[in-house]
Amino acid sequence: MMRIMVLNGPNLNRLGKREPEIYGQETLEQIMSDLQSTAKKNGCEIDYRQSNHEGDLIDWIHESVDEYNGLILNPGAFTHYSYAIRDAIASVEIPAVEVHLSNIYARESFRHTSVIAEVAIGQVSGFGSAGYGLALKGLLQYLEGEEN
Amino acid sequence: MMRIMVLNGPNLNRLGKREPEIYGQETLEQIMSDLQSTAKKNGCEIDYRQSNHEGDLIDWIHESVDEYNGLILNPGAFTHYSYAIRDAIASVEIPAVEVHLSNIYARESFRHTSVIAEVAIGQVSGFGSAGYGLALKGLLQYLEGEEN
Amino acid sequence: MMRIMVLNGPNLNRLGKREPEIYGQETLEQIMSDLQSTAKKNGCEIDYRQSNHEGDLIDWIHESVDEYNGLILNPGAFTHYSYAIRDAIASVEIPAVEVHLSNIYARESFRHTSVIAEVAIGQVSGFGSAGYGLALKGLLQYLEGEEN
Amino acid sequence: MMRIMVLNGPNLNRLGKREPEIYGQETLEQIMSDLQSTAKKNGCEIDYRQSNHEGDLIDWIHESVDEYNGLILNPGAFTHYSYAIRDAIASVEIPAVEVHLSNIYARESFRHTSVIAEVAIGQVSGFGSAGYGLALKGLLQYLEGEEN
Amino acid sequence: MMRIMVLNGPNLNRLGKREPEIYGQETLEQIMSDLQSTAKKNGCEIDYRQSNHEGDLIDWIHESVDEYNGLILNPGAFTHYSYAIRDAIASVEIPAVEVHLSNIYARESFRHTSVIAEVAIGQVSGFGSAGYGLALKGLLQYLEGEEN
Amino acid sequence: MMRIMVLNGPNLNRLGKREPEIYGQETLEQIMSDLQSTAKKNGCEIDYRQSNHEGDLIDWIHESVDEYNGLILNPGAFTHYSYAIRDAIASVEIPAVEVHLSNIYARESFRHTSVIAEVAIGQVSGFGSAGYGLALKGLLQYLEGEEN
Amino acid sequence: MMRIMVLNGPNLNRLGKREPEIYGQETLEQIMSDLQSTAKKNGCEIDYRQSNHEGDLIDWIHESVDEYNGLILNPGAFTHYSYAIRDAIASVEIPAVEVHLSNIYARESFRHTSVIAEVAIGQVSGFGSAGYGLALKGLLQYLEGEEN
Amino acid sequence: MMRIMVLNGPNLNRLGKREPEIYGQETLEQIMSDLQSTAKKNGCEIDYRQSNHEGDLIDWIHESVDEYNGLILNPGAFTHYSYAIRDAIASVEIPAVEVHLSNIYARESFRHTSVIAEVAIGQVSGFGSAGYGLALKGLLQYLEGEEN
Amino acid sequence: MMRIMVLNGPNLNRLGKREPEIYGQETLEQIMSDLQSTAKKNGCEIDYRQSNHEGDLIDWIHESVDEYNGLILNPGAFTHYSYAIRDAIASVEIPAVEVHLSNIYARESFRHTSVIAEVAIGQVSGFGSAGYGLALKGLLQYLEGEEN
Amino acid sequence: MMRIMVLNGPNLNRLGKREPEIYGQETLEQIMSDLQSTAKKNGCEIDYRQSNHEGDLIDWIHESVDEYNGLILNPGAFTHYSYAIRDAIASVEIPAVEVHLSNIYARESFRHTSVIAEVAIGQVSGFGSAGYGLALKGLLQYLEGEEN
Amino acid sequence: MMRIMVLNGPNLNRLGKREPEIYGQETLEQIMSDLQSTAKKNGCEIDYRQSNHEGDLIDWIHESVDEYNGLILNPGAFTHYSYAIRDAIASVEIPAVEVHLSNIYARESFRHTSVIAEVAIGQVSGFGSAGYGLALKGLLQYLEGEEN
Amino acid sequence: MMRIMVLNGPNLNRLGKREPEIYGQETLEQIMSDLQSTAKKNGCEIDYRQSNHEGDLIDWIHESVDEYNGLILNPGAFTHYSYAIRDAIASVEIPAVEVHLSNIYARESFRHTSVIAEVAIGQVSGFGSAGYGLALKGLLQYLEGEEN
Repeated sequence: MMRIMVLNGPNLNRLGKREPEIYGQETLEQIMSDLQSTAKKNGCEIDYRQSNHEGDLIDWIHESVDEYNGLILNPGAFTHYSYAIRDAIASVEIPAVEVHLSNIYARESFRHTSVIAEVAIGQVSGFGSAGYGLALKGLLQYLEGEEN
Repeated sequence: MMRIMVLNGPNLNRLGKREPEIYGQETLEQIMSDLQSTAKKNGCEIDYRQSNHEGDLIDWIHESVDEYNGLILNPGAFTHYSYAIRDAIASVEIPAVEVHLSNIYARESFRHTSVIAEVAIGQVSGFGSAGYGLALKGLLQYLEGEEN
Repeated sequence: MMRIMVLNGPNLNRLGKREPEIYGQETLEQIMSDLQSTAKKNGCEIDYRQSNHEGDLIDWIHESVDEYNGLILNPGAFTHYSYAIRDAIASVEIPAVEVHLSNIYARESFRHTSVIAEVAIGQVSGFGSAGYGLALKGLLQYLEGEEN
Repeated sequence: MMRIMVLNGPNLNRLGKREPEIYGQETLEQIMSDLQSTAKKNGCEIDYRQSNHEGDLIDWIHESVDEYNGLILNPGAFTHYSYAIRDAIASVEIPAVEVHLSNIYARESFRHTSVIAEVAIGQVSGFGSAGYGLALKGLLQYLEGEEN
Repeated sequence: MMRIMVLNGPNLNRLGKREPEIYGQETLEQIMSDLQSTAKKNGCEIDYRQSNHEGDLIDWIHESVDEYNGLILNPGAFTHYSYAIRDAIASVEIPAVEVHLSNIYARESFRHTSVIAEVAIGQVSGFGSAGYGLALKGLLQYLEGEEN
Repeated sequence: MMRIMVLNGPNLNRLGKREPEIYGQETLEQIMSDLQSTAKKNGCEIDYRQSNHEGDLIDWIHESVDEYNGLILNPGAFTHYSYAIRDAIASVEIPAVEVHLSNIYARESFRHTSVIAEVAIGQVSGFGSAGYGLALKGLLQYLEGEEN
Repeated sequence: MMRIMVLNGPNLNRLGKREPEIYGQETLEQIMSDLQSTAKKNGCEIDYRQSNHEGDLIDWIHESVDEYNGLILNPGAFTHYSYAIRDAIASVEIPAVEVHLSNIYARESFRHTSVIAEVAIGQVSGFGSAGYGLALKGLLQYLEGEEN
Repeated sequence: MMRIMVLNGPNLNRLGKREPEIYGQETLEQIMSDLQSTAKKNGCEIDYRQSNHEGDLIDWIHESVDEYNGLILNPGAFTHYSYAIRDAIASVEIPAVEVHLSNIYARESFRHTSVIAEVAIGQVSGFGSAGYGLALKGLLQYLEGEEN
Repeated sequence: MMRIMVLNGPNLNRLGKREPEIYGQETLEQIMSDLQSTAKKNGCEIDYRQSNHEGDLIDWIHESVDEYNGLILNPGAFTHYSYAIRDAIASVEIPAVEVHLSNIYARESFRHTSVIAEVAIGQVSGFGSAGYGLALKGLLQYLEGEEN
Repeated sequence: MMRIMVLNGPNLNRLGKREPEIYGQETLEQIMSDLQSTAKKNGCEIDYRQSNHEGDLIDWIHESVDEYNGLILNPGAFTHYSYAIRDAIASVEIPAVEVHLSNIYARESFRHTSVIAEVAIGQVSGFGSAGYGLALKGLLQYLEGEEN
Repeated sequence: MMRIMVLNGPNLNRLGKREPEIYGQETLEQIMSDLQSTAKKNGCEIDYRQSNHEGDLIDWIHESVDEYNGLILNPGAFTHYSYAIRDAIASVEIPAVEVHLSNIYARESFRHTSVIAEVAIGQVSGFGSAGYGLALKGLLQYLEGEEN
Repeated sequence: MMRIMVLNGPNLNRLGKREPEIYGQETLEQIMSDLQSTAKKNGCEIDYRQSNHEGDLIDWIHESVDEYNGLILNPGAFTHYSYAIRDAIASVEIPAVEVHLSNIYARESFRHTSVIAEVAIGQVSGFGSAGYGLALKGLLQYLEGEEN
């Protein structure tokens, strides 16, 4: 059975409380719980974590390498400057997918650049909390493709 | 029943024949036929078109407004400079989703800019032909959300 | 009697239906019909066309050279990147005037650049549909000046 | 009866004497006198001033607010750097139109930027002295539109 | 009684020991103690924290939301790149003021950009340790203004 | 007794009348009168002037050198381009503080650059009219520091 | 026998009529007829087409893949922005050569960039109509080299 | 007898008092008096003026046209942004020479750009007060060359 | 006896496991153990640490000031954006040397900028794990030079 | 009989030995010998030289002016920065053609700029050693055109 | 007696033959001979050299240090990129003056940057051959100033 | 026995005489003599050369290919613009190491770019004359690694 690690970056613990007109009204817990259900329906398992510390995300990416088949990453604002997270993903052999709740390419110009995209297999942005489910499905299809 | 128009831009008629290491080995017809199945499973209908002419895409975006609930658009290389397609999307009231087969943010730097993103509700890139299905699901969830 | 060709670029067929807070509520047909009246009052004749195809606009610019004394061009979003239209205007001997319904210099920064301006004799922007009439009068005064 | 203030910026007092191949052979007095006639025909009144001092233009913009219905402004070279004039226009409630004798977008690249455009309702450039008349008509149509 | 959280970013624990010609000779403890006195005189209370960890600052910003009326933030070098701190401030409802000991706009060019300024109500820079007191007074006046 | 000159640049005479959502509802006279009171409480005296003419501000900066201990300067839009005012401040031996009513770093990008900051001792921005009082206190503390 | 497709972009139908000081006095028909003769002498055959429509050029590039051994392309102003034509060339297996009548690197700066060059085997610019013959010879030598 | 107008821009009235390590210890009066002597030795006459007002300099440039054979201009900080002064020089038929006391190309980067240079016949910078004399000799040689 | 602190930034714990074609096959432990031997031969002692947390590196730089004579720092991806680490080095009195395993100037362009270089005494890049030894020798020679 | 000077810049003496996958396997002597044959067939004569010294190329360009009818120049890496060679070509009356073995516009971005192109009549790039022959033919056609 | 070395860079040997509308009709020998006379009148001696080789100029700058009191340098096109010449000037203790025959700031934009200016005491540009005499006088005045 | 060529670029012959606060007080001869000793201790041999002529350095790089195992290169100011030296290194099969006496990344911004780095195996900068020894050791370790 596939196991997927879902990592959430800075300020995502504020979901539901923070700027709901941009990020929606669900809390991270609710979104992750929905994702858990989607995972089950698709015959896989997810774990998730959240941190406001760049170093935690890097540590977790490293730890994922032996126990997970793939990564889903919502790096929050780290998307735009954390070359360290980029290098962390490049340093593990498992595929990573980037998710953004809002369409980052339709917001402030500093949000148009993802320093992480170059090492991800794909990106989903703008679908709100539904994006996690799409990312999961996309990642699973990628992993199945790789198996064949 | 939801009806979705799927528009494919320049060179996508060469899918399967063109640089398969980047774009995969399926033809556009096969991909669209798979998407048709996915659509049916999700209780909706799709139509699709392809053109190498920017003007055709604009005409079809305009025509979609009365008969379709949403648009899925793979603008190909027009992504990077066609402000006319951008304005076409802005001129219709139905939501549009952007799909890219390859992860455009991991390729040449001119592909990192989408002039269309600002008027799309979301974007899926890097999942190969599977991206169309993800885009469709994302769009349907968006349309359901709007209905409520 | 002076004859003027009025060319309208992409998405202008959506006038009246498209983002009325920016572009106004009149359709292109109404605006052109008003311009026809203005033309008559000023003792000249206009013809007009609209296309979402860059190539059509170029073809029409070429065809205008033998039958018209001048051009009025609202290039829509082509304003910002169509060097081909620019070269088309440079390739004909008749004077061209650029019209923009909205004040393009007060909108998104990509709209602040007109690649066509360098080959036009003048530009009118921001007066809504009234801009066509102003452009026509300016062009006629220019043509009279040339005759003397 | 509408009253319009026409403000002319630096070096426009040299009109007729200065680079006539670019700016034409009429003096500012002749141009303003012609504009006076145009104004009368259109049932309105104009006053005009000229100064080479940025501060004078700002003072006059402030003073116009109570006695005039609109402003026509040819800011000369201040167009390209006077954020103070820009803020002056933004600080008054009456609409302003920008006029340039030459087509500033077809000249040296430093003339392609108007820091004032963002607060003007519209712009006329490239029609020589005829531009003032076009600007006046455009402004009057705007004011009439507002009244309704 | 108003309660204000004062957050100090990286290297501010070195104050008094670090480059005194730029940052002065007082330690952070002395400065905070003086600020405590100023707070009392103005009928409010402050708490303060310091960390070299971006994530700590984000955590503390989140925690402040329920117990404090406002934030004073000296983000140190994070000022110039921490979009995560920026988003943290945007995610809480309480107002934040930015303080810099040195005049960052008179130093190396990388210090001229604050990615945080856009979400702060105001900024005080260049007054050395006195800047904290000014920021506090400014913040209190803002909060009083809001109450009325 | 300390004497401080307060100089106000272009359009500040419009305070209270101009864009009150950005600049507040007090007139410059009211703000200066309040500042006068603050000055008295702090045992110093202020004089103030306002002009829309860059040259006036330069003249006044020069004149201040013999009769005042310091300068408070709200350069308005001159902030962004008047290298002449910058050089004027550099040419006098008395310290200058920059004040901005709005948080210039949170507005249009052209307002993010102060060409004057490099020669000022400090800057206060975003606190509305309260900023003058903060600037005065900061300047006084600086002058006291210098005396010791 | 080698077969070469020669594609001509926008405004080249105006050759002989358009800015002869830049582009020479021959019509496209004369140039192509000369090229036909050169082709015969070199034991190969050419076909040629011209369009002002970007989409036509893309369609023709796709169609060439089965019937021609190579492409000669004068993309006109599309050279500078048509990433779609670039991708079309990349999508076919036959080699392409870029021709420009004028030396594009000695003209306006926007003409210094060819977005197509990266996928062409070579480029000839500045030799007027003679450039087509040079391109043909270069392409034939390349094809011969490939055969060995 | 040749007559030359010498115009001095902002802050030059502070010479001798202002940053003597950069600008030297002579006052403007002493420098102009020395220049008067140099002028006499070279059989010509000079007048000079100084203002901190951009508009004054423009007015004086205009007035010079009928009574002087040439201009020497030290525009001070206006060098770097006053397109209005640039246009003033372009609007008069007499030649102008630009003088800078310090070597502006060896100072802060904003001083490396002269917006005026393009309309001056030549420039002397870095020789301190001696630069005026060099400029005068250069201008006289130019005027003699023109006479022949 | 000299004591040197060796700090290793993000992802260096993955050495030997991570992209060995770029970073080599030794683990960090092996490299540090070799460096220990080199240190002993050169009569000095080293300690080393590694963290993926920017804040840890800053804390450790601060702590080094009293117990170590110098710093060797491989900041990993923090090299390119951590102004906070830069300020940490500037805040301690001991010299720091920058080491990079790969030649950062021969890789992706974002790696060409080190925000830390300006406060380091020197830099060694591209020699793989051997670079630590070179950096140590360079640092020791620097410290000896300082002693004399 | 036409005489053409062929100048070869830095590192071209390494041809055949240097990066053959980019520059081919022929030595410069072989290429020049082939070019000699082509020249004879076309009824003209060539001389050639090679140097790694910019100054030699400039000297030779100067010397060519009296004895040769035209220049063929492969400036190697000097293409990208030698404004001195550019000025040398501009200083002689004979036409020059630029040749590049590889398609410089399809390589590293620093190779996309030719500072020499602006003073050459044309350019041939990407055809390997065959490019010299094409350049020669193009130059001869140009010279014949000039004669008529 | 003062001795001054005058160094002339690339293409200046072509003076009188090269683009006389820009550089004048005198040869370098005539200009240097005139300068010799000026030198004598001013009680000093000059030697001069010219080379198209950057290395020669650097060698000569080094050699000048023991036998000359100052340098006059017309670096020709090396002005714009030869950091090596810049460093050569910085490496000698004698003052250097930069001369340009044409006003480099009024020509192509690449000529607006002098990489040498930062290490010169001053610059004279735009006075044609007369510039050498002005530079000499300026340099002598500088040297006299230094003596006192 | 390994043989290494050490090449020194422009102005390095001035070492010991030139700006000793930046480049140290040893002459090049002393530094090279010390390096000779280091080489012997490490069982290898060095030769060295210096020139102010870019072409000499290129010639010597070419000549090194048959007689030396590696190159140490201090390109001086050529570091920042000599693409010709870059190509020379790329054209030989032996590895090259770049040395800079000063830390070029901590000086003027033009020194932050090395156009040569991309073809070197590594770089040592900022250790003064000791850098040559470090570069030698690094190069030897690299060569040993290659042998195995």
